Amino acid sequence: MPKLNENYLKLKDSYLFAEIAHRTAIYTKEHPDKPLIRLGIGDVTRPLGSSILKALHEGVEEMADTATFKGYGPEQGYTETRDAVAAYYKSKGVDVDSDDIFISDGAKSDTGNVTELFAHNNVILIPDPVYPVYVDSNIMCGNQVTYIKGDAENEFLPMPDERQHADIIYICSPNNPTGACYNKEQLKVWVDYALKNEAVILFDAAYEAFISDPELPGSIYAVEGARRCAIEFCSLSKTAGFTGTRCGYTVVPKELVFTASDGQSMSLHAMWNRRQSTKYNGTSYIVQHAAAQVFSSEGIRECRENLEYYKANARLMADTLSELGIRFFGGVHSPYIWFECPDGMDSWECFDYLLEEIQVVGTPGAGFGENGKNYFRLTSFGTYENTQEAMKRFKRLLGK
Amino acid sequence: MPKLNENYLKLKDSYLFAEIAHRTAIYTKEHPDKPLIRLGIGDVTRPLGSSILKALHEGVEEMADTATFKGYGPEQGYTETRDAVAAYYKSKGVDVDSDDIFISDGAKSDTGNVTELFAHNNVILIPDPVYPVYVDSNIMCGNQVTYIKGDAENEFLPMPDERQHADIIYICSPNNPTGACYNKEQLKVWVDYALKNEAVILFDAAYEAFISDPELPGSIYAVEGARRCAIEFCSLSKTAGFTGTRCGYTVVPKELVFTASDGQSMSLHAMWNRRQSTKYNGTSYIVQHAAAQVFSSEGIRECRENLEYYKANARLMADTLSELGIRFFGGVHSPYIWFECPDGMDSWECFDYLLEEIQVVGTPGAGFGENGKNYFRLTSFGTYENTQEAMKRFKRLLGK
Repeated sequence: MPKLNENYLKLKDSYLFAEIAHRTAIYTKEHPDKPLIRLGIGDVTRPLGSSILKALHEGVEEMADTATFKGYGPEQGYTETRDAVAAYYKSKGVDVDSDDIFISDGAKSDTGNVTELFAHNNVILIPDPVYPVYVDSNIMCGNQVTYIKGDAENEFLPMPDERQHADIIYICSPNNPTGACYNKEQLKVWVDYALKNEAVILFDAAYEAFISDPELPGSIYAVEGARRCAIEFCSLSKTAGFTGTRCGYTVVPKELVFTASDGQSMSLHAMWNRRQSTKYNGTSYIVQHAAAQVFSSEGIRECRENLEYYKANARLMADTLSELGIRFFGGVHSPYIWFECPDGMDSWECFDYLLEEIQVVGTPGAGFGENGKNYFRLTSFGTYENTQEAMKRFKRLLGK
Repeated sequence: MPKLNENYLKLKDSYLFAEIAHRTAIYTKEHPDKPLIRLGIGDVTRPLGSSILKALHEGVEEMADTATFKGYGPEQGYTETRDAVAAYYKSKGVDVDSDDIFISDGAKSDTGNVTELFAHNNVILIPDPVYPVYVDSNIMCGNQVTYIKGDAENEFLPMPDERQHADIIYICSPNNPTGACYNKEQLKVWVDYALKNEAVILFDAAYEAFISDPELPGSIYAVEGARRCAIEFCSLSKTAGFTGTRCGYTVVPKELVFTASDGQSMSLHAMWNRRQSTKYNGTSYIVQHAAAQVFSSEGIRECRENLEYYKANARLMADTLSELGIRFFGGVHSPYIWFECPDGMDSWECFDYLLEEIQVVGTPGAGFGENGKNYFRLTSFGTYENTQEAMKRFKRLLGK
């Protein structure tokens, strides 16, 4: 009989969205006359930009003719797409070699699969609260994780504890779910700490496009020394509305070389290249062709238009919560608003309260870790009209 | 310092295609007047069918409007696509629950990632020669593998050795690279052996669309009992020319339940579902929408047209080798011809010989395992004209 990977037994059931669906279904059944406003899901809703759509159609058309047909592409991604990503970095003032960029179907795959490059006896720091994939993918392969606490005191931006050794450090900035964003000085502290510990930072920049302040780093490589200690994951999901179209990228600098137990050098770049070549067959050409267009000046302009739409929603929510005197994080450089549940409620109580009283559905913070249990996440991906209506109801319910 | 996954040091360099490229580049440089005919790469070349192209365009168009826009889809795949695959199985006389089908970006990802479900102390049988991903993905996670020998004597269709216990068994039929295809009786022996050993068969059916004889099983589920012991991987790469468009699917029957060391039941279906939900974000909607069209009657007709084109190439090669008295396998229910290198050459000698004498590039069998070292793979994915010309040269060179 095959021995199975029993680490799976240690996973908590990922019941968060199932439970939300369950509670809303019951409510809807009992109150069919009261339509819900859903501000819970972290998924985009605006259509793709027209030049990006055109590129998708072009990619399809190339499949119609033997002369332009695309079969297997390079597992690392097409040069066209890698160069476009490198140029995007350049436009943000960051130098990244096109050759260090690996195009993929999304940051979820890459942040999950990167655990394969490491042994199972590392000290792994993971913020709490955070995107659950980091924890789950480590538990699945038998790793122990050490949580680093995000809370109101550190504004959900935990900083290194010099007494704590680390080998691998996960950082998500702007953070999902809290919306908190590290500044350059703070990231520099993390990079220095990583270099001192000879640790690797796994930096998730999936929400970088929401950063409005050019002084805030949209890439860890904006920080001196990061090429020697950091892998960066990014995605077109939020940047370009590709949650259903699927494309991401991961930067693994060639400088990331460590020593094996027998003294041999091992390059993380070479290992990731081998991992992708063996277990991935490249991202759809059609999608990659459009991804290259995303980073053209026209594509960026189109994406920005959608981002501004979401940001206006975020602003509206932030203004409302400020007005109501409710403490919150995010909402400026992030599509997420992370607010403290009022009146000492825990996050599930808050969920039920908002559902029953004003029919607004959000996400209980408990789903993102122990330190989220008194917080609540709203997202700016709804329509402006719905967000406006939801905020009107917030004022009615929570105004003094 | 992070401890890295040192199993990567045990991987052999995957130098096969690099070495082929290197030798052909040298030859081309020295003989610019002698154009090469490439029959080496296992990649399709014919354009997609027109109804499938139309579905791709439709999928793109849905991304243009808020009302039809698709964001995150189910990690398991859209119902439309899963149902289409289930209906395709049905048309082949095989019952597969739509619910047991997981849509992915390709069989390479799934056959690679499936190792995650198992512990590292299983007896794993892998044929030699075979598609290198099975071996490499097991080595990468620290597993030992036991080779089962394919050779001329068993027509490259190894059968179980009842004295050998197994926990996990890889079978690829029609086989890459040998083109050999198990019949139903042979697969039944494997299924019975697996059931007796309580083993899991990992069945790769990526080339099933090349099977011409309806008596030959295009799915392991055509065999009684297979739902209790087998996972099946399949792909649209060869079936529908999706090598660059990217779509595959994996069937994990709910019957596959095993016992953990503490006596708990563990379902491979639930584990794969959890794996995909955690580390995969679903296949591009645009691609999935077209994949559903592939399995419509119109889509199947279009795909068949391309398959017939490749099959005519395979027939031409098979006829030529027969005429020349060269022993070969495959070529009938497979796009691959696997022939014994003439005059006792090893496969790299044969490579150089064909390159220098008749400028035909193929793939040395040594790249697929120890037992391939005196064999050579040709593929039927070239143009008919090139295949014809290559066979004319074979006759000139190897005719008595």
